[in-house]
Amino acid sequence: MRTILFAGGAGLWDEYRTALPLALADAGVPARIVTETATPDAVDYIVYAPTSPLQDFAPFTNVKLVQSLWAGVERIVGNPTLTQPLCRMVDPGLTEGMVEYVLGHVLRHHLGMDRHIVNPGHVWDHRCPPLARDRKVTMLGLGALGAACLQALGALHFDLRGWSRTPKSLPGVRCHHGTDGLREALSGAEIVVTLLPRTPGTENILNAETLGWLAPGAAIVNPGRGPLIDDEALLAALDSGQVGHATLDVFRVEPLPAGHPFWTHSRVTVTPHIAADTRADSAARVVAENIRRAEAGEPLLHQVDRVRGY
Amino acid sequence: MRTILFAGGAGLWDEYRTALPLALADAGVPARIVTETATPDAVDYIVYAPTSPLQDFAPFTNVKLVQSLWAGVERIVGNPTLTQPLCRMVDPGLTEGMVEYVLGHVLRHHLGMDRHIVNPGHVWDHRCPPLARDRKVTMLGLGALGAACLQALGALHFDLRGWSRTPKSLPGVRCHHGTDGLREALSGAEIVVTLLPRTPGTENILNAETLGWLAPGAAIVNPGRGPLIDDEALLAALDSGQVGHATLDVFRVEPLPAGHPFWTHSRVTVTPHIAADTRADSAARVVAENIRRAEAGEPLLHQVDRVRGY
Ligand SMILES: NC(=O)c1ccc[n+]([C@@H]2O[C@H](COP(=O)([O-])OP(=O)(O)OC[C@H]3O[C@@H](n4cnc5c(N)ncnc54)[C@H](OP(=O)(O)O)[C@@H]3O)[C@@H](O)[C@H]2O)c1
Ligand SMILES: NC(=O)c1ccc[n+]([C@@H]2O[C@H](COP(=O)([O-])OP(=O)(O)OC[C@H]3O[C@@H](n4cnc5c(N)ncnc54)[C@H](OP(=O)(O)O)[C@@H]3O)[C@@H](O)[C@H]2O)c1
Repeated sequence: MRTILFAGGAGLWDEYRTALPLALADAGVPARIVTETATPDAVDYIVYAPTSPLQDFAPFTNVKLVQSLWAGVERIVGNPTLTQPLCRMVDPGLTEGMVEYVLGHVLRHHLGMDRHIVNPGHVWDHRCPPLARDRKVTMLGLGALGAACLQALGALHFDLRGWSRTPKSLPGVRCHHGTDGLREALSGAEIVVTLLPRTPGTENILNAETLGWLAPGAAIVNPGRGPLIDDEALLAALDSGQVGHATLDVFRVEPLPAGHPFWTHSRVTVTPHIAADTRADSAARVVAENIRRAEAGEPLLHQVDRVRGY
Repeated sequence: MRTILFAGGAGLWDEYRTALPLALADAGVPARIVTETATPDAVDYIVYAPTSPLQDFAPFTNVKLVQSLWAGVERIVGNPTLTQPLCRMVDPGLTEGMVEYVLGHVLRHHLGMDRHIVNPGHVWDHRCPPLARDRKVTMLGLGALGAACLQALGALHFDLRGWSRTPKSLPGVRCHHGTDGLREALSGAEIVVTLLPRTPGTENILNAETLGWLAPGAAIVNPGRGPLIDDEALLAALDSGQVGHATLDVFRVEPLPAGHPFWTHSRVTVTPHIAADTRADSAARVVAENIRRAEAGEPLLHQVDRVRGY
């Protein structure tokens, strides 16, 4: 019988209280789940989200795995008390949600929907947009989420480029990598999607210089992390017209503070960090599978590299 | 050497003047193309769009095929002077455009984008939409366009139903047909897309009774033809909340007249008949292939059944 500490806060526990025991039973892992503990050295596994107050992992001397419920781990990866293996969430439900969000907003910008949704002058302008095959879309980040979105965009024949840290090869995508590859990935892009983790290497990756490489009037869709974009540079590029529109799901401070210029800018769409949620049913199965692997001594899924930070 | 009358009006000829001769040469059909003629009995083929003034087909006694450049043929199919074979346009470029439009607007309604695009109260409501797999979408019309759109929607795992005149079977779609099948196809649908031709059998197919079968607050996307919807019934359903939103690309009168209530209704989006355009490059190849087939005595592609009207 193993002891699992669910450290995600009360709201999250409500979502998992049924799904997690079921998933553990299905995976054949006998376990009891606690939401707090007075005996940290009796805990075998921690299921974690940054909505939990837990900050000091040192007393959990017997923990074999800290499993994040979030895909992005920037709020835990640098915690110096955390020496146990850390795994991030790659949840099929989350991936599906992200594909829907990215495909929807890329199509929205591609088709120029906004000028019909808000059309106070009742303009009837019978010009069709180009086909997707003639639309240049660049994905920054070719991980679990970026690759899944590219596959869906490829099915619609968008003209695709991608960018990652290490060399990658994806069917139908011209792939570039590393600092040297960024300019080739971004030059002339009409729609850019950012699905990078937040690390020192990705912060402000869209800045005054790199935004200048895009096609004039390009659209940005950022469901990655707020700090990927230099906010001041983006506002300047929007005002000059170099960037035509930005749809932002993530921000340096969330909820986006009242009075932030993004709220009122006519060419910014704010979505409230809803691009993709971990879904308890499918995520619980991922948690249970990783605990089963730990018990069996098999390699863990989606283990975080603490040096590179994701 | 065959004579082809291009009857589509001057604007359209500009689009085809290069593409059509090229496509005919590629298909191995020696032909000269005229845009008017004093000797109708010397014409072998007519390439037609309703933007042409041509109404009397009787003098064209030697025409072997009237090839429409439009997918919808309701403005020519009932012409009593037309006794020659009539083929409609099924153009891969047009199909791609329609798939992009339908997928884009279905995702827009599915994700609830509009409340973020227009959000004067700066509301941060961190609730995710359901996944596509939990969203009921119904397609009215399972022809070239409806089937292509369903395939793309199916790749995103939408919960799909379809409706046609005759029985159909499409992978991943619960198919219904005929007057008796309509209620099952529409009951509880959250998003309805109409890709039916305009015929006496499809006019006002969405009316007070059938709109009542949808899930409360359902969204309608109509890129088919204006008369598929009873406008008054739709406005009443929008006002009662039974229909949450209508995105309309086609109208009984086009351009949609100034002062029409659709222009000002807060829950109607008007797009100016741009869902899908015939693209000259790919459409010219379809025209040339059908002329080649006529010359070779092979079956024509996409011949219209004059009795059923499409
Ligand atoms: N808005 C939301 O609701 C939401 C939900 C979930 C996730 N997210 C965000 O999405 C991010 C991506 O998720 P994921 O699951 O796809 O992550 P992942 O599988 O770890 O992939 C990350 C990708 O970013 C690339 N990358 C990392 N550092 C880089 C650098 N310095 N230069 C170039 N490329 C770099 C990686 O390159 P390599 O392939 O070479 O390693 C990899 O392709 C998460 O970190 C999170 O921030 C947002
Ligand atoms: N907005 C735009 O830009 C645009 C562009 C192109 C086309 N369109 C419209 O899209 C329509 C569909 O095009 P398509 O190429 O897909 O046509 P299609 O291949 O002829 O398919 C028509 C579909 O409608 C069904 N249908 C016809 N009459 C019916 C009835 N009385 N009851 C039930 N189902 C019926 C047919 O059923 P069966 O399969 O049983 O025959 C078939 O599935 C065109 O007619 C045109 O009006 C709009």
